[in-house]
Amino acid sequence: MITTYHLANANGAFFSPHAWRTTMALAHKGLDHQSRGIGFTDIASICDGARKIVPTIEDGEQVLSDSWSIAVHLEDTVTSGRSLFGGEKGKAHALFINNWASFGLQPLLLRIIVLELFERLQDKDKDYFRASREKRFGRSLEAHGATADEAKAALPAMLAPLAQTLNIQPWLGGDVPSYADYIALGAFQWVRTSSSFDLPDFAGEKVADWHAAMLDLHDGLARTNT
Amino acid sequence: MITTYHLANANGAFFSPHAWRTTMALAHKGLDHQSRGIGFTDIASICDGARKIVPTIEDGEQVLSDSWSIAVHLEDTVTSGRSLFGGEKGKAHALFINNWASFGLQPLLLRIIVLELFERLQDKDKDYFRASREKRFGRSLEAHGATADEAKAALPAMLAPLAQTLNIQPWLGGDVPSYADYIALGAFQWVRTSSSFDLPDFAGEKVADWHAAMLDLHDGLARTNT
Repeated sequence: MITTYHLANANGAFFSPHAWRTTMALAHKGLDHQSRGIGFTDIASICDGARKIVPTIEDGEQVLSDSWSIAVHLEDTVTSGRSLFGGEKGKAHALFINNWASFGLQPLLLRIIVLELFERLQDKDKDYFRASREKRFGRSLEAHGATADEAKAALPAMLAPLAQTLNIQPWLGGDVPSYADYIALGAFQWVRTSSSFDLPDFAGEKVADWHAAMLDLHDGLARTNT
Repeated sequence: MITTYHLANANGAFFSPHAWRTTMALAHKGLDHQSRGIGFTDIASICDGARKIVPTIEDGEQVLSDSWSIAVHLEDTVTSGRSLFGGEKGKAHALFINNWASFGLQPLLLRIIVLELFERLQDKDKDYFRASREKRFGRSLEAHGATADEAKAALPAMLAPLAQTLNIQPWLGGDVPSYADYIALGAFQWVRTSSSFDLPDFAGEKVADWHAAMLDLHDGLARTNT
């Protein structure tokens, strides 16, 4: 049984977009796994005490962190299940999609959801989150959240590759889901668990249909924690 | 010998980003090919007279249009050369990158370069370009070009997946170039041939290094028409 450490908010919802990539990848590979919700301020005390981020997974003695590293490890070592990447070029191209989500889409979404996300955090995490994010943003959470309308204006262009691709094929992976779909889903899970912003509705019908199908995958795994 | 129809401007430079995808894909496959520059207003008179876009390629009796369709056709039929996609998931993920370029990056770049691009067109193409683009934009070329600074402000986030991926691997295709690299190159060729905007410099060192390496590929093919 593999344990994945997620971030849980005050509602018990798992909101880390990167940990959702991992949970879905584990299910895709057909591995026996469970998720455990912790706070930002608990990360230092899990596993070997050397972890700084989620997802961190624990598989017997082995501990791994970072969603991309975990996905590559699963693909390389678990040869029995379905492929996440479909070969070297599939993996290379998925890294672009990974970086689109992490460095393009998610920073834009955070400007829209940051104040609600903060409100929903566990109380013990609030000081840490405010201090670390205000340092990263170079401004207060409130000032960052005040740019939400500007971020919404830029969002259609950022979502265009997702929406246009789903006009042509049912999944980012083509005829079947791939790790690319789980990357994109992570961003949607983050928004859904942390805010009132209806991203599937904003993104249009094809994306909303894909999102509903994503929530149905693997026995509704992504719906189970809302 | 395969002929690819490109758009040529008044300097004789081939500026269609989509036609550059095709030219590079033909070279990647090791096919004997040549490029022919025409104006927008010449498209109706090439080949079978039924073409509306470049790239259009002519291979004996066979005529094909649309860069994505051509790439898929080359991958399916030319099994002797190097792979463009590396399998079904590599192709599915490349479609995302294709749509990122066509519907995310390039519309942003056009707001930056449109006035210079227009100035450099062949005279016979100017009326067509102005009328068709002003209809598409819902405003004059000048009003569209007046949003260049706003587009530049949004450009780093749009380029982030490219820049971040090239921090980790030398090509979008991984250790070797794939069709994904040619997709991205097309946008850079468009900007370079149509404007004074230095996109590689704007995009940072890793992207600039990749761009220089792209220009060296296939005996400097992308440098030959500047």
